[in-house]
Amino acid sequence: MLAQELIARKRDGAELTNEELREFLVEYGAGKVPDYQMSAFLMAVLLNGMSGAELRTLTRSIIDSGRRLDFRGDGGPPAVDKHSTGGVGDKVSLILAPLLAEYGLRVPMMSGRGLGHTGGTVDKLESIPGFRTDLGLEEFQAVLADVGCAMVSQTLAIAPLDGRLYALRDVTATVPSIPLISASIVSKKVAEGIEALVLDVKYGSGAFMRDPERAVLLAETLVELAESEGVRATALLTAMEQPLGRTVGNALEVREAVACLQGKGPADLREVTLALAAESVTAVVTDVPAGEIRAELEAMLDDGRALARFARLVERQGGDPGICTSPEVLPEAPLRVTWESPADGFVTRADAYEIGVAAVELGAGRRKMEDEVDPAVGIELCARRGTSVQRGQPVAVIHARSADAAETAARRLHAAYGFGEAPPAEVPLVWGRVPEVGEPAG
Amino acid sequence: MLAQELIARKRDGAELTNEELREFLVEYGAGKVPDYQMSAFLMAVLLNGMSGAELRTLTRSIIDSGRRLDFRGDGGPPAVDKHSTGGVGDKVSLILAPLLAEYGLRVPMMSGRGLGHTGGTVDKLESIPGFRTDLGLEEFQAVLADVGCAMVSQTLAIAPLDGRLYALRDVTATVPSIPLISASIVSKKVAEGIEALVLDVKYGSGAFMRDPERAVLLAETLVELAESEGVRATALLTAMEQPLGRTVGNALEVREAVACLQGKGPADLREVTLALAAESVTAVVTDVPAGEIRAELEAMLDDGRALARFARLVERQGGDPGICTSPEVLPEAPLRVTWESPADGFVTRADAYEIGVAAVELGAGRRKMEDEVDPAVGIELCARRGTSVQRGQPVAVIHARSADAAETAARRLHAAYGFGEAPPAEVPLVWGRVPEVGEPAG
Repeated sequence: MLAQELIARKRDGAELTNEELREFLVEYGAGKVPDYQMSAFLMAVLLNGMSGAELRTLTRSIIDSGRRLDFRGDGGPPAVDKHSTGGVGDKVSLILAPLLAEYGLRVPMMSGRGLGHTGGTVDKLESIPGFRTDLGLEEFQAVLADVGCAMVSQTLAIAPLDGRLYALRDVTATVPSIPLISASIVSKKVAEGIEALVLDVKYGSGAFMRDPERAVLLAETLVELAESEGVRATALLTAMEQPLGRTVGNALEVREAVACLQGKGPADLREVTLALAAESVTAVVTDVPAGEIRAELEAMLDDGRALARFARLVERQGGDPGICTSPEVLPEAPLRVTWESPADGFVTRADAYEIGVAAVELGAGRRKMEDEVDPAVGIELCARRGTSVQRGQPVAVIHARSADAAETAARRLHAAYGFGEAPPAEVPLVWGRVPEVGEPAG
Repeated sequence: MLAQELIARKRDGAELTNEELREFLVEYGAGKVPDYQMSAFLMAVLLNGMSGAELRTLTRSIIDSGRRLDFRGDGGPPAVDKHSTGGVGDKVSLILAPLLAEYGLRVPMMSGRGLGHTGGTVDKLESIPGFRTDLGLEEFQAVLADVGCAMVSQTLAIAPLDGRLYALRDVTATVPSIPLISASIVSKKVAEGIEALVLDVKYGSGAFMRDPERAVLLAETLVELAESEGVRATALLTAMEQPLGRTVGNALEVREAVACLQGKGPADLREVTLALAAESVTAVVTDVPAGEIRAELEAMLDDGRALARFARLVERQGGDPGICTSPEVLPEAPLRVTWESPADGFVTRADAYEIGVAAVELGAGRRKMEDEVDPAVGIELCARRGTSVQRGQPVAVIHARSADAAETAARRLHAAYGFGEAPPAEVPLVWGRVPEVGEPAG
């Protein structure tokens, strides 16, 4: 096989065979196909798409590039995981993993770091003093056996080809492709050895998918692909027009996750977390009515059981469990600057993308993979879409390293917020499910 | 400017500004933009196209990457050149350059090497014992001043960015793009400093353009682009369903070019050469009727003046001018194997692509840029499309290094030739012109 001939066929819209696509990927993994051929191929895929068979081959080739765990049939509780397609203020994983473990499931969760305007679970966890996310596979499995959940960064042992492809996509404008996104997500989750996967596909200004049809298509592609690899999968379509919860920034988000684990915290964060948790449980627990599952999950948040499980996880991974009772142990930024409403009226817009960028500019995220993240900085939002505010009333509190940085963030917030005389139309928080309720999965 | 943002805009069909596209190309030339970003960009260009303004910026950036000659206004004869988009058996340049020089024009011709199924003028010239094509710019200009024409390979001094882009396109399946082809051709010809350019845009199985609409679009794009750089340009659309003339292979083609310069040789080769030569002359000589120009060009072929000019060129560039009178000085292959017609009937197909590949397999061309070329091997065609043949009658003579190689070529000829009971429809040799006759140029 000549790489350029295979690229030419994809360029011309032909379907590649399983064998040739697999060989191309294996040779790339072995360093025999150079980056410049792969990036031309990826651009052709982005513009011309992939068939279902090609997508399955890509996904399987990524899985086969590394180790594959398997928790099925080992006598332990069912292993499940959740993946979100990325958003602003999305700290759901920090609540969901201990909650599901408390329910009696296993959650072997491998997460990413933030990039661009979106945050990452690993960065959030690392704002907890002492918390280690870089466990080796053995330690990961030991924590999982002890606590029922473990939360680590992607290891090189799992799907190493994905890491190389992602780094190349990031610098060649080939990230926003439904097949490439789907293969990247599903390959890693399948390699975790789970039985069921719940996907949180976000849509709105702060999400990768900015129109609803593309979000539905991504959800359908992800579910179908995971099912084709023998993993039960469902997806919820959730709103990302404004940030989830009231905080954006790593330590600030941990603090808010702890509040939620104490039965408090913002309603939208609790609602999305419970919806995703209920999906996860119903995927593997078939003998309990959905209503009872949901009630039990709520009780675990309200009576402190989920929080206690989180404290065990934090301690077991080297972190200070004191954050669960004394959040002031978390790093705090030296400056807090209040940003006030410039007008009377209703908040009509609290744009997740702009607020995400404001947080990155403060240092809470990274523009490039190699950037460092400041755990303490971020933004607290005091007024959400639909809130009625008066001129001069605090809308956000900027947690910054310097006055200059706070000023830059304030300018960005000015662009992020809109005010009007009438409240905006409500956007449903969870606005769809794949497969639709009542439809058979897979 | 972030390279990935520029790539993303081209990916999404946006038009790049002159400044950002130029900066991207300059940074690539300086090694600051890596190949993997450029190849993703090239694939996006291939699939999404380029605006006229983008194409002019690309062309100008390639010109500006190297030196730019200028023969205009130096008091010497008008400088002209011809470019063919590539074919099989196309030895027109070897005849045309001395013919135009004999007419009194200057022809500073820089040509390429063959790649894939198509041949290259430089490879053909290098089959002449002693002939040097790698002249420096000064020597090139000295030969041009002495002989009226000079024929050299692309030097690194002229349009070096084109060389790098072409090498990358060759291995990333991004060659067949009308804007990329046009920028590559026009930039080099403009940098030669000529006043007028005649393009031979080939169409048919042996050409890059396999459908007539694409060939016309390429011709129009080339003419418009050259005119926008101040070079008068016209294009002829010529057939490349079967090879041009009767020979394919370097020394064999030189021999045929010499025959044509002696007023002999195949009619199709003479006709295409005269048509292109007449276009070149009429572009810069406006006070002589077209009929007289054509008659004079024919006379120069018939009475040996063009051949004498060619002999001077060969001698001046270090080659043995004896080839003009004693062609047996040219290298000859040790084996000649006749391939006979397997059937009675008319030749309905003598596929230029397949015959080109057969010649490459014999060693006359290269699959990869770094391959060596064998000057002696090739194929002589005894029967063209429309010829009536009898079973067992010679259709081609294979000039090979070994019996194995000859056998492989024979198998390929079997695929190239078709025979039938009726003669095939005639394909006009020169089937169009851009601009159409009567239409104003530019």
